[in-house]
Amino acid sequence: MAAFKNIKLLFVPLRIFLNKTPSSLQLNLYRFKYNEAYSVKSVLLDHPVGSDVVVKGWVKSIRKQKRTTFMHISDGGVEQIQVVIPSSACDEDCCFNSAVEISGKVVVSPKCNQPVEIQGEKIKVVGKLDLQSFPFGPRKYYPPEYVRQQIHLRPKTNTYSAILRLSSLISNALQTTLIQDNFVSVFTPILTSNDCEGAGEVFLIRPSSNEMCREMGGNRKPEESYFNKKVYLTVSGQLHLEAIAGGISKVFTMGPTFRSENSRSRRHLAEFRMLEAEIAFCNDLQPILSTIESLVKQSAKIILELGSLDLVTVGNYYNENLEESLNELLKFSFATISYREAMELLLKNRDSFKTPPRDGADLGSEHELFLVNHMGGPTFLVDWPANIKPFYMRTSDDAHSLVSCVDLLVPGVGELCGGSLRENRYDILKSRLQALNLEESLNWYLDLRKFGGSPTGGFGMGVERLIAYLLRIPNVKDIVPFPRTPHNCPM
Amino acid sequence: MAAFKNIKLLFVPLRIFLNKTPSSLQLNLYRFKYNEAYSVKSVLLDHPVGSDVVVKGWVKSIRKQKRTTFMHISDGGVEQIQVVIPSSACDEDCCFNSAVEISGKVVVSPKCNQPVEIQGEKIKVVGKLDLQSFPFGPRKYYPPEYVRQQIHLRPKTNTYSAILRLSSLISNALQTTLIQDNFVSVFTPILTSNDCEGAGEVFLIRPSSNEMCREMGGNRKPEESYFNKKVYLTVSGQLHLEAIAGGISKVFTMGPTFRSENSRSRRHLAEFRMLEAEIAFCNDLQPILSTIESLVKQSAKIILELGSLDLVTVGNYYNENLEESLNELLKFSFATISYREAMELLLKNRDSFKTPPRDGADLGSEHELFLVNHMGGPTFLVDWPANIKPFYMRTSDDAHSLVSCVDLLVPGVGELCGGSLRENRYDILKSRLQALNLEESLNWYLDLRKFGGSPTGGFGMGVERLIAYLLRIPNVKDIVPFPRTPHNCPM
Repeated sequence: MAAFKNIKLLFVPLRIFLNKTPSSLQLNLYRFKYNEAYSVKSVLLDHPVGSDVVVKGWVKSIRKQKRTTFMHISDGGVEQIQVVIPSSACDEDCCFNSAVEISGKVVVSPKCNQPVEIQGEKIKVVGKLDLQSFPFGPRKYYPPEYVRQQIHLRPKTNTYSAILRLSSLISNALQTTLIQDNFVSVFTPILTSNDCEGAGEVFLIRPSSNEMCREMGGNRKPEESYFNKKVYLTVSGQLHLEAIAGGISKVFTMGPTFRSENSRSRRHLAEFRMLEAEIAFCNDLQPILSTIESLVKQSAKIILELGSLDLVTVGNYYNENLEESLNELLKFSFATISYREAMELLLKNRDSFKTPPRDGADLGSEHELFLVNHMGGPTFLVDWPANIKPFYMRTSDDAHSLVSCVDLLVPGVGELCGGSLRENRYDILKSRLQALNLEESLNWYLDLRKFGGSPTGGFGMGVERLIAYLLRIPNVKDIVPFPRTPHNCPM
Repeated sequence: MAAFKNIKLLFVPLRIFLNKTPSSLQLNLYRFKYNEAYSVKSVLLDHPVGSDVVVKGWVKSIRKQKRTTFMHISDGGVEQIQVVIPSSACDEDCCFNSAVEISGKVVVSPKCNQPVEIQGEKIKVVGKLDLQSFPFGPRKYYPPEYVRQQIHLRPKTNTYSAILRLSSLISNALQTTLIQDNFVSVFTPILTSNDCEGAGEVFLIRPSSNEMCREMGGNRKPEESYFNKKVYLTVSGQLHLEAIAGGISKVFTMGPTFRSENSRSRRHLAEFRMLEAEIAFCNDLQPILSTIESLVKQSAKIILELGSLDLVTVGNYYNENLEESLNELLKFSFATISYREAMELLLKNRDSFKTPPRDGADLGSEHELFLVNHMGGPTFLVDWPANIKPFYMRTSDDAHSLVSCVDLLVPGVGELCGGSLRENRYDILKSRLQALNLEESLNWYLDLRKFGGSPTGGFGMGVERLIAYLLRIPNVKDIVPFPRTPHNCPM
């Protein structure tokens, strides 16, 4: 029996040993046949030594010797595979970053870090590359500003494709963490006739076609033709999320939000992703803080577990040891400090800042980063003055000039997250809405307090900023595939 | 040892037996303390008989007798819990759908379907309800049109909160299925200066503030002030997804897309969600068809496994046996038929239609539903005439008047999904773009064919339509929390 097992070993694909069979094998089987037969990962995991395979991918490096050519092939997964092929089989079309299909045999790799490689027999170039005008060369460093100029070709670089894979792990970790914690995932609307924060920095929409505007709006203005009123791109799904939290006590949404700000900072985009969560029956900031902390830490944990190779690639590019910084983050218990305490600290150190802090006012980026350094890591800044925060935040029971809210500040980025308890007392909210002239447009929101509205609380987290923080990427434009900023929307 | 085990049994929460401990216990522990201690699910699973608990939720039914009051409490999860409490402890504020916190003891339930119930001691109403003006009463049927009028209160109804939970399971199943299949999740932009389908039914954006338009645009038109050019809301992320599939061979995105159509059909929204996937090194429709089929079936499987109670609630409302229809779907192998075959079939039956089919033209909804009935279930309709399909589809190698593409038609809904191989031959694509006057604006897209562009293929699936199909919900407005349709965007 033992001998039989050993004989079989050579013919059994690696996946079986790693116990990585797909969870619903039956449905996956026929798909497997088509989509995965050629993937680099599948060759490494599923095909025993000696089997004939076809590998499809891009040539990430190529070294032609007189008789033999060595290549590394990537199909966009983490793993690359080495191919050794007679040079006579390669014509000049087969070059750096061309798309190829290589047929050959799986053989034991003599010295590579991978257990197997491909002994290539035939190669077919299915996507040629114009090497003269291709903006990237092999094994060269290009600064982010240069890479950003080639935005549609950026996914072909090793660093950016690693960032995309890690971003995928992070956004998936965020959702999975909440779903395991019994949150329900919902879609809040992008188009809204309300402007949640009241800040006015919104985009307005209308049908592009004048004909459609006339057909639908008659004599109304084009921007009021389709919906009979002005409609904007959302700046936050929070108010709508609160309505849903009137029936389901833990909900979240992850989607795009928009700001028409004229900002060129390395932390701002006109279009960015927010993870927003709302918790009913919440009359204390604590569950909000702990949910935020666990989301940040679970994301760190997942990329450490599943993205280690990519962390090295990104870390090398930015000169950071990401494994070290992420492990440090996991060990750090997030600090909590009140606005009052923070302000005293800032005022004591007023000489360290370009713009001195002002008691009662919002903080600048330099103040945020000072606080984070002082506290030694991510810091919850709680209990802010009511007059610099939005209308929906709950007045503190202890001090009426304060609201129960939190900003999470993190190293390198500053504000990552904002959250609060919501004002659920009908009369107080009503008078605030009246004062802001919002009583009519937000009457539905006030209504929620009339019909079994529990105390609720929630938060919004900038997804690109979380990625920037975890991967130590200085500029959020190097995270989203197609960043939108003032004067910049090329495609 | 065995005796010891039996004694402990009474004090061990149910979750331990079901082996449903959270996967990353350490991080969850402190969160648990705050968020979950009071959840209905946690009372049912984690608290042994005899323990003191506080349950927080909404009163879903209440029956007051002289001495005792019986209630069912929901916190928005699938499970409700029965509370038995002295009537003297309940004042009139405690009514249908009010938000309450009840402290009491877990006791064995004498006849309920649940193993335990709460022997309530104290009740606190934390969110009163104005029963006079609340639009819903207990145990009453309201038609969807009526419920839709109360859109911000709709999540408080049993049927709609079940639809939200099932929708969450489905969108999570879609993402998980693709991630297990090694797809990478990305965010394609919502704002774009390209109009993918070229159909012209797009929304145009501009900063709402005239001051901002002047500050940023000088003398330019308001709609060209922020980005220096006209920018639209995306109708599809496909073109951008193809650029990413130039470096990562399997990618997907799930996000909002927009159409400024003047349509009032029960299948159309101005804002809806699409799941779009792109597969590089794909020169055959088959992997596209199998990925689509497995997404639909995995979604069906997941809601059968995890949403059975909610399926009964939704099924009862719409008079459907969802367990039966979903199991039938799982058994059915999706049919495949060419446009040519389909047209012959339709022409043979031309008398059955209000609008007769026209050879070479697109199909109407009645034609789609006829085909689906004829084929006995979901049907892939492949190989369409090139002249009624968009420019990016690949001309068929066998017949140049055809393109390699697919529409998935499903019962009750019609078109659920559209996909194709993409034209990856530089010269052919270039001349098509020239003919459409798109060469300049889509030069970047053409570029992808110059730099290692492999053959690719992909598809887009309407998420709301998938939910409508699986749950047999006739109108997509009854699926999204805040539907946007012509003349309708109230909040």
